[in-house]
Amino acid sequence: MSARWQIDEEAARLAFEYAMGSHRQEFGHFFLARLFGMDISYPDDTCVVRLTPRDFMFNPQGTLHGGVVATIMDISMGHLLNHVSGPGTTLEMKTQYAKAVKCEPLRCTGRFLRRGRGISYLSSELLDESGDLVAFATSTWKSLKPAG
Amino acid sequence: MSARWQIDEEAARLAFEYAMGSHRQEFGHFFLARLFGMDISYPDDTCVVRLTPRDFMFNPQGTLHGGVVATIMDISMGHLLNHVSGPGTTLEMKTQYAKAVKCEPLRCTGRFLRRGRGISYLSSELLDESGDLVAFATSTWKSLKPAG
Amino acid sequence: MSARWQIDEEAARLAFEYAMGSHRQEFGHFFLARLFGMDISYPDDTCVVRLTPRDFMFNPQGTLHGGVVATIMDISMGHLLNHVSGPGTTLEMKTQYAKAVKCEPLRCTGRFLRRGRGISYLSSELLDESGDLVAFATSTWKSLKPAG
Amino acid sequence: MSARWQIDEEAARLAFEYAMGSHRQEFGHFFLARLFGMDISYPDDTCVVRLTPRDFMFNPQGTLHGGVVATIMDISMGHLLNHVSGPGTTLEMKTQYAKAVKCEPLRCTGRFLRRGRGISYLSSELLDESGDLVAFATSTWKSLKPAG
Repeated sequence: MSARWQIDEEAARLAFEYAMGSHRQEFGHFFLARLFGMDISYPDDTCVVRLTPRDFMFNPQGTLHGGVVATIMDISMGHLLNHVSGPGTTLEMKTQYAKAVKCEPLRCTGRFLRRGRGISYLSSELLDESGDLVAFATSTWKSLKPAG
Repeated sequence: MSARWQIDEEAARLAFEYAMGSHRQEFGHFFLARLFGMDISYPDDTCVVRLTPRDFMFNPQGTLHGGVVATIMDISMGHLLNHVSGPGTTLEMKTQYAKAVKCEPLRCTGRFLRRGRGISYLSSELLDESGDLVAFATSTWKSLKPAG
Repeated sequence: MSARWQIDEEAARLAFEYAMGSHRQEFGHFFLARLFGMDISYPDDTCVVRLTPRDFMFNPQGTLHGGVVATIMDISMGHLLNHVSGPGTTLEMKTQYAKAVKCEPLRCTGRFLRRGRGISYLSSELLDESGDLVAFATSTWKSLKPAG
Repeated sequence: MSARWQIDEEAARLAFEYAMGSHRQEFGHFFLARLFGMDISYPDDTCVVRLTPRDFMFNPQGTLHGGVVATIMDISMGHLLNHVSGPGTTLEMKTQYAKAVKCEPLRCTGRFLRRGRGISYLSSELLDESGDLVAFATSTWKSLKPAG
């Protein structure tokens, strides 16, 4: 754990140039989502974020950083809310970390726990390829007024 | 909010090249911390993370992404635990979001709520330049056994 | 809301005397569980707590107190952990409140999110008679060493 | 831990009769607060709840039940909000448990993290007589419209 390791700099550069060339600052396509290689879709009443992490997204101990995990899960919930009810703001979010992961395909699914006009609750689960739970999150959102 | 905006691509490229040129995959210097422009220090019994966000770190609505906020706060707590007791793993973390921010200097301070041999609780507060609360977080950590 | 209301004192006394006469300080039968009128069972891999609140368990605004809701959900998770793996201690618990309820039948179901030897994650949902979500909770538990 | 123990039935009965004789269903005086023996005051910009638990409030393992701890902390925050801004409803609350306690004087202090017109964040800390942290909580509240 304490031995210093090296990130794959070519993979980091490819991810960065892909984000630079393809982002648009709107839901589904904004820079961070592109940098982290996210594919975002809306099957049924969920939002699914798929990605395969690159090691520039790791913590010093050599696994996917908890902050990036939180970012993925936040996006799965915020994008679902936006898709269904328009944009909102996160009041709070709690994430529980179940399993450390490296560069393997991940699937994150955001769902409503309770859909309200003003306040909504959502949950998100992040699974690895074998279906093991990587993380579970719940959050509270406040819907913004429609621009009209 | 719905009008599409553009990120400062030159600032993003500078941040990326700075991270590529200066990171080491260890506490305080790893790639994500460098990419996000963090300066990490340990005054008294705290860990302080300072940074001025760039707009490539924003959400589609044009403010600092909640996932990046969570990353900053996670780092303030995980680095403090590592500094004081060696590395640990986050069991869970909850973040409350108080104020949306843009490209302004931020100061994040991680502290122990309870320091245990196995399980520790930490909190973190993120303030803007005027001292307003941007976010507050609490977390639960499990210390890893020393490698010996 | 501000008009003062009266609790059903006879119902409170019946609940108290039932708890006095029937409790045993062990899982499933301890005083608080009896006072609040809980029936606890373990269908499949869950723990189900059923109860019909009495108004002595209400907040000043005249609905079931959030602390009692938290108590019910805590019990659904702690009893499941004890049933499956022996006793544990709650490290943390978060509860989201979706709907205020009064004296109606409630059903609370605790489940494992992740079952570990040392650390386990559980969730709990509380539903009313019509199947509406009343509250959702997640928690982190540390298993105690078997007494041997 | 597994040996069955007995609650002090006389203390339980005294607590119950005290609650029956003294409660009023309003902030500060409602039945549960009286049953659990809470004294509630508002020094400075905080709400302080003092109590000495009785063993009918314990879990099967013989320490103060986590649900009762959550109830105390919820009251310290909800009463402060009500005192300062009028009544509100808890959207969510997270509690971290640091130390198991028995029948000893406890002091719980609720504070604002962020006071908003619609949404407020509060924290609460529960200390024992020696000043050790027993539990720490944060919560999110929505203020109810004034009755006018």
